Amino acid sequence: MALLKKINHRARTDQNSGFGTNANSYGGRFVNKDGTPNIEKRGMHFFRRISWYHTMIDMPNWKFMSILFIFYIVLNFIFAVVYYAIGIEHLDGIEQSQSILTQFGQAYFFSAQTFTTVGYGHISPTGFLTSALSAAEALIGLLSFAIATGLFFGRFSKPTAFLKFSHNALISPYGEGTALTVRLVPFKNTNFTDANAKVTLGMSVEENGTMTNKFYSLPLELDHINALSLSWTLVHPITEDSPLYNMNEEDFRKNHGEILVFITTFDDLFSNTVAARTSYTFNEIIYGAKFEIMYNRSKDGTKTILHLDKLNNFSNSKFN
Amino acid sequence: MALLKKINHRARTDQNSGFGTNANSYGGRFVNKDGTPNIEKRGMHFFRRISWYHTMIDMPNWKFMSILFIFYIVLNFIFAVVYYAIGIEHLDGIEQSQSILTQFGQAYFFSAQTFTTVGYGHISPTGFLTSALSAAEALIGLLSFAIATGLFFGRFSKPTAFLKFSHNALISPYGEGTALTVRLVPFKNTNFTDANAKVTLGMSVEENGTMTNKFYSLPLELDHINALSLSWTLVHPITEDSPLYNMNEEDFRKNHGEILVFITTFDDLFSNTVAARTSYTFNEIIYGAKFEIMYNRSKDGTKTILHLDKLNNFSNSKFN
Amino acid sequence: MALLKKINHRARTDQNSGFGTNANSYGGRFVNKDGTPNIEKRGMHFFRRISWYHTMIDMPNWKFMSILFIFYIVLNFIFAVVYYAIGIEHLDGIEQSQSILTQFGQAYFFSAQTFTTVGYGHISPTGFLTSALSAAEALIGLLSFAIATGLFFGRFSKPTAFLKFSHNALISPYGEGTALTVRLVPFKNTNFTDANAKVTLGMSVEENGTMTNKFYSLPLELDHINALSLSWTLVHPITEDSPLYNMNEEDFRKNHGEILVFITTFDDLFSNTVAARTSYTFNEIIYGAKFEIMYNRSKDGTKTILHLDKLNNFSNSKFN
Amino acid sequence: MALLKKINHRARTDQNSGFGTNANSYGGRFVNKDGTPNIEKRGMHFFRRISWYHTMIDMPNWKFMSILFIFYIVLNFIFAVVYYAIGIEHLDGIEQSQSILTQFGQAYFFSAQTFTTVGYGHISPTGFLTSALSAAEALIGLLSFAIATGLFFGRFSKPTAFLKFSHNALISPYGEGTALTVRLVPFKNTNFTDANAKVTLGMSVEENGTMTNKFYSLPLELDHINALSLSWTLVHPITEDSPLYNMNEEDFRKNHGEILVFITTFDDLFSNTVAARTSYTFNEIIYGAKFEIMYNRSKDGTKTILHLDKLNNFSNSKFN
Repeated sequence: MALLKKINHRARTDQNSGFGTNANSYGGRFVNKDGTPNIEKRGMHFFRRISWYHTMIDMPNWKFMSILFIFYIVLNFIFAVVYYAIGIEHLDGIEQSQSILTQFGQAYFFSAQTFTTVGYGHISPTGFLTSALSAAEALIGLLSFAIATGLFFGRFSKPTAFLKFSHNALISPYGEGTALTVRLVPFKNTNFTDANAKVTLGMSVEENGTMTNKFYSLPLELDHINALSLSWTLVHPITEDSPLYNMNEEDFRKNHGEILVFITTFDDLFSNTVAARTSYTFNEIIYGAKFEIMYNRSKDGTKTILHLDKLNNFSNSKFN
Repeated sequence: MALLKKINHRARTDQNSGFGTNANSYGGRFVNKDGTPNIEKRGMHFFRRISWYHTMIDMPNWKFMSILFIFYIVLNFIFAVVYYAIGIEHLDGIEQSQSILTQFGQAYFFSAQTFTTVGYGHISPTGFLTSALSAAEALIGLLSFAIATGLFFGRFSKPTAFLKFSHNALISPYGEGTALTVRLVPFKNTNFTDANAKVTLGMSVEENGTMTNKFYSLPLELDHINALSLSWTLVHPITEDSPLYNMNEEDFRKNHGEILVFITTFDDLFSNTVAARTSYTFNEIIYGAKFEIMYNRSKDGTKTILHLDKLNNFSNSKFN
Repeated sequence: MALLKKINHRARTDQNSGFGTNANSYGGRFVNKDGTPNIEKRGMHFFRRISWYHTMIDMPNWKFMSILFIFYIVLNFIFAVVYYAIGIEHLDGIEQSQSILTQFGQAYFFSAQTFTTVGYGHISPTGFLTSALSAAEALIGLLSFAIATGLFFGRFSKPTAFLKFSHNALISPYGEGTALTVRLVPFKNTNFTDANAKVTLGMSVEENGTMTNKFYSLPLELDHINALSLSWTLVHPITEDSPLYNMNEEDFRKNHGEILVFITTFDDLFSNTVAARTSYTFNEIIYGAKFEIMYNRSKDGTKTILHLDKLNNFSNSKFN
Repeated sequence: MALLKKINHRARTDQNSGFGTNANSYGGRFVNKDGTPNIEKRGMHFFRRISWYHTMIDMPNWKFMSILFIFYIVLNFIFAVVYYAIGIEHLDGIEQSQSILTQFGQAYFFSAQTFTTVGYGHISPTGFLTSALSAAEALIGLLSFAIATGLFFGRFSKPTAFLKFSHNALISPYGEGTALTVRLVPFKNTNFTDANAKVTLGMSVEENGTMTNKFYSLPLELDHINALSLSWTLVHPITEDSPLYNMNEEDFRKNHGEILVFITTFDDLFSNTVAARTSYTFNEIIYGAKFEIMYNRSKDGTKTILHLDKLNNFSNSKFN
């Protein structure tokens, strides 16, 4: 693969990528489409390797709710077994004449009523052991809900960058030459200010017989804007200093490489910096195309309308 | 419109405004008076376009409380219907001899007592289905209050910039010449430090036959102060380098343009950076006026009194 | 007052103090000893001028707890009145034969049991109105505790700079000349890194017949340290460029002026920048004194002992 | 100790370490292995010196849970004593014919049922004093759980740097010469970006007959990386400008000194900057060794595998 020869010797390498130069480890992609690094960790016990808070905060809603319900069902079952083992006669209000299944069911619901502190009282504990167990269960219940409260708050107050990236990066006409362009847009009712962008080219290439990871900074026409309210097209002009200067359509098709995009911006509501990442492999780059403007004036002339569905719309504009 | 010709060729353009140069989209205002961008998003389903957390956090108190109450009333109604459908005879304590409406009402209040976990117990569930439903309802109730707790905390801990801007921007006498001045003041018991200001002129002007958005930085005499305790008057001296240098009173009256003001400051109590924005259209600019000082010494000479009601007070001072 | 003449003409003024130059407002102190600005706000209704969250978060514990208890007592009283007005006969379990006071008391405690959702059930609501009221009260109770939870968390998670300043600033011997020194120390089990200090001289002086506020930067020998673990002595060397260069002991005694100190540092546990401020009026400056070292090695030689009670200890060291 | 003579006179001292130059206080280590400063605070009452929030947030889980349980058990005991003192006859549902111990036990569990607001109601308060006490207890219970909720959330939402450092620092071959190397790795499912490293050499040496603390900056080949996804080896090349330039293996073995390492990075999920510190004493430095690469490509070639257990793996590579 002679890609390295094509790289402009003037191109500025980016030594701060954090991915190292050892290419034996290269797994075909540095960064996944959703911005997470394409890395798997091993050699440490799962429980030590996992931040359970990060895990609980990051999982989808249905999974989180399922875990809560299953926890509730299982914990009540365990307590019901212990109540039953201590003796159903210590739960006042359960008739001894009923079937074992019914008695166990009532112990189960007594447990649920204790855990949630609803405590109707038609069943109530007598005797030291059962009373102590129910006192402990009520405490555990409340602490569980304390934890759940924290998790819920953590989940929805987690500062998230509600940014969408165009699915493709384009090589577009730009002045006399060409430029690499990527588009992004805020898609929710947020208010972003002070947005910064950083774009890096990453490649795993052969150098002197061994595979090496090479990273190059791709300078942008504008790498900072004050307000990120409309769509933002990141434009890397392919000048003589660009590592992409000598590459043609075929080079992108035949080689492996990756454009890493990293955005940070300040979210007014969270009052916090939020970050978003994505990457475009060479086969996600469209050569000779141009993003269409995705906003226009409203009919009454008093607003700008931003069309989120046009984020990836582009027109072909082959270069001659 | 020959406004563009009036713009000083020395003026420094601001390419980082984030509003783009395509003026077909210009809706008469870049930024609304309250600082939100004057943009409407379309082309994506409402639920995906909305961050429900941002929405719940940003709405007024009465609306938020109403939503909580309506949610409570409706959810209890749904549960009451299911309890009733399972069979009112499984709710111990409800007399079967009563009217259907009364029975339903009692099922409704049993639901409320379960949802809030008050669980008096004069009505209590029997049978598997009703017991299981009430166990689920108690869980759902507690989780709902967990979510409400998070929302309440999110609402009142949201770092907000309690800053008020003068309603008008003024063209004031300044040294030998004039200056554009805007005033702002912290109006609550907050403690702001490290305040920064950025002022931009935005215009939608005709250039070579097409409408273009033009943005110019307006440098300030002071764009940073260490403590924002008193009022702060932002002063843009209209020197030869200012884009406003050639503009007279009539130019402001006859043309469309906008002064964008962006403030960030550190709130000691939130220990967080907070941001505030506003904008002044040309017809909100008063030509030949000067802000009156809005603070004075207390009678006993031991304090400075800041008069918040004088924020927009100015005296006319026509230029000769 | 000829203080202004004493000020070195080389001294660098600090235009970013945020206190303005208009000295008619000067209330004898710019910043209070506890770091709050010495300013009172007027001209706006109390409720609009107050951020109730800031107020609830900043008040002392005893006051906060008292407000919670009083709120609980008063709210239950109001509900008890309404229960009583609807009719005590709708509260099952209260004997009608008792005295009015006893009945009211029982309505009161029923209200408390509903508000806290303890709901023993020996008293329970019957009839639509009483049932609906108790359902509403249980909701209000839970929402109140949701708010209280948020306030508690807000109170103790509020990033606070646990820093203590020496009570006095000293004019100490320093190399061949003298220096203004101030000492501060972290006094709790916190871990501060990246600490920055800024010191400003503020004076209200006569200039051309009118009183003017003047501010001067006081450059420090070190204005940044990587770890703030031990005591930190801020040293402003009084060189020829210092505004204090010509001032002698009498000048400090006879004139009014103020040293403003502003610290920001990163608290590892809060993972947040925290800020602290204080000020020293000229009569809090001790001329000819030197801070004593406030730490030493532990007896077993394995630790450094920091003596917090020695923060303001200094030895006299009159200059010849 | 002639170590100071060995220090290159070109070496850049680090005056911002925050540890002071007074070496009488040096306790054999500036910073502990876990990153906390090796300092003990005295001279102020324990309760004023301790931030109880920091303490509750920082303690291990088992300790935190134990405190909650003990608090619950003790508080119920106190309330039970008061209920008993007021008179067991005011607790409806407790049979007077039982033994004192049984009666007290039932008062105890009534207290637990009130504190957790489970309120079964088989025991219920009568009379003003007992009713008022139980109303107060229910309030205290809910406020306790409000505080517990905040503490739980504070504990698991505390931004923590899940970074592991190699146990040893190495003096490795580097180009023509040598370098000091330290390795670190993110070991949990976090996403770190914008990582910065600062390395300082700290020594307590004899200078002109008195012990002095000396600090030197150790410049790194790379002190910033954009993404901290893989392992990061900090490399300080021992050039002519390095304070370590003249030191050989014996110098490290015979002298006391310390390498301080400080990392800050941005955690995407917390959306917050997190910090980690560690230190290596001279006897934790291995002379003539080199870290082995700790990641490789997955078998299917689509991922990079990071082996956390190889963090401290190194091969000997004695210099000739």
